[in-house]
Amino acid sequence: MANTIRVAINGYGNLGRGVEAAIKHNSDMELVGVFTRRDPASISTDGSPVHRLDELAGFAGQIDVVLCCGGSATDLQQQVPEVAQLFNTVDTFDNHARIPEYFAAVDEEARASGHLSMISSGWDPGLFSLNRLLFEAVLPQGKTTTFWGRGVSQGHGDAIRRVKGVKDAKQYTVPVPEALDSAMSGERRELTSRESHVRECFVVAEEGADLEQIRHDIVTMPNYFEPYDTTVTFITAEELERDHAGMPHGGTVIRSGDTTPQNLQVVSFQLALDSHPEFTGSVAVASARAVARMAREGSTGAISILDVPPAYLSARSGAELRKALL
Amino acid sequence: MANTIRVAINGYGNLGRGVEAAIKHNSDMELVGVFTRRDPASISTDGSPVHRLDELAGFAGQIDVVLCCGGSATDLQQQVPEVAQLFNTVDTFDNHARIPEYFAAVDEEARASGHLSMISSGWDPGLFSLNRLLFEAVLPQGKTTTFWGRGVSQGHGDAIRRVKGVKDAKQYTVPVPEALDSAMSGERRELTSRESHVRECFVVAEEGADLEQIRHDIVTMPNYFEPYDTTVTFITAEELERDHAGMPHGGTVIRSGDTTPQNLQVVSFQLALDSHPEFTGSVAVASARAVARMAREGSTGAISILDVPPAYLSARSGAELRKALL
Repeated sequence: MANTIRVAINGYGNLGRGVEAAIKHNSDMELVGVFTRRDPASISTDGSPVHRLDELAGFAGQIDVVLCCGGSATDLQQQVPEVAQLFNTVDTFDNHARIPEYFAAVDEEARASGHLSMISSGWDPGLFSLNRLLFEAVLPQGKTTTFWGRGVSQGHGDAIRRVKGVKDAKQYTVPVPEALDSAMSGERRELTSRESHVRECFVVAEEGADLEQIRHDIVTMPNYFEPYDTTVTFITAEELERDHAGMPHGGTVIRSGDTTPQNLQVVSFQLALDSHPEFTGSVAVASARAVARMAREGSTGAISILDVPPAYLSARSGAELRKALL
Repeated sequence: MANTIRVAINGYGNLGRGVEAAIKHNSDMELVGVFTRRDPASISTDGSPVHRLDELAGFAGQIDVVLCCGGSATDLQQQVPEVAQLFNTVDTFDNHARIPEYFAAVDEEARASGHLSMISSGWDPGLFSLNRLLFEAVLPQGKTTTFWGRGVSQGHGDAIRRVKGVKDAKQYTVPVPEALDSAMSGERRELTSRESHVRECFVVAEEGADLEQIRHDIVTMPNYFEPYDTTVTFITAEELERDHAGMPHGGTVIRSGDTTPQNLQVVSFQLALDSHPEFTGSVAVASARAVARMAREGSTGAISILDVPPAYLSARSGAELRKALL
């Protein structure tokens, strides 16, 4: 199959597994293998061969795109500029504040070696960014608001687990319904953190821990919880495992603008996801298709989803897309 | 201003006026003029110079993109292939079934003359098409459903006005709330016309007309009304003018898919528009920016919004977009 796109997964956590699942839905993709820093014998994939990450260079010429599925805290910033010296890449780097410097670092290596790297291509950054751009281009005078959730915030869960007396925890970020409705109706008020989201914490305490102290330590935590209305619910380890094992997420991007003083226009894009990593992986896989095509046409350097003709994300031909979707 | 994009409006109906209003929100655009088949002296614009359409050829070299704002029934199919011989163009051709042949006709002329023509770039076809593509690329296994409204259907209003005894009328297409909610919750049932939309008709009858006969003639009209639950409300000409003068529209594109058997993902894109023609005009104007840029880079032939790197729709630089929106 001349048009088969050969991909590899670099890093096999939740996102790597999400990418593996997504590839199965795309018959034009072939997964060459999973690459890991861990002992390959310790990794149990859904049928994909596993290799040590230091073997990746030996696959040069046999992989069209490497999907880099490491964390945004340190992994991607170290790995992607290095991988881009030998392969085209896709990643879902999501540290918004660092995107400009990350883009520059990846761009330099990819350009120098003649590869193409698509950065930050999940849902936020990714599909949300794309729709923010569309909305702003179409309604230049207006206001864009983003709500996140209902969904699990890993960072906030980690913060709770560092509180004394906490054994385990899960945190959900939840939009305030009135704020969401108001933005959807076209209101453009500047919302405080407290007005836009609430934080729901489900906490397993250590035996004999002071529950009131835990609650106090959580809700007063600066940046993480103090700016929000935060609820703390104590549950058992069994309840946490039974009722909070999933990784749902989602959100809504809304822009309202006026085309003339009397005419209000409201546009919105919404995700309701049972699995954050599987959906992010699905966006990354469609992005890999675009990267493979644009690289074949000679594009090099770093790009984002804002630079990709949407048709390149689809396995269907231009004529099919026009007939079916336009 | 070296980067100013010089545009012209061909056809000054509701859409032409919407385009004129949109251009005022885009400081990188300059409106060279409105071109019309009518007597220019009979046209009252919002400040733009008016020329006879047969003068358009004389502006070759002075206009970067002509926005063709004629009707999809006959105007665009005749005009755009002709205008594309001398200018880059954007249109909002919305006869879905005829898009492949229309694309081919425009492509041939634009390619032969070295111009670039973006067809069907409003909201449906246009932004809805783009999101349908994104949704399908990201969730290849799933189902996409589109709801239209609440909004005015010009074609259905015209059909009512042809009924004996009807003086004037306005028709609203309205999604059935239960069907919309069900699709948003991820259900993938195949919906009949009756299950998905209702049709609300506001009718001004001629004096002495048989109201029951009018109602019967409307609700039994094949294709237009018979497949739907249709309500007919008789009102006065004054009420029609006072309460139904606007052109609101909108709709929702929803896709639900499974990434793994246990994980449902629902994505949606929604518009709630006070003015259909002003919003359509706003999409066309952003599209003109992309056409001007891609034409400068040497692209020729016919394209749609599915072929445009989204960043080309925005007046902001790539670095600004990455910093602000990614």
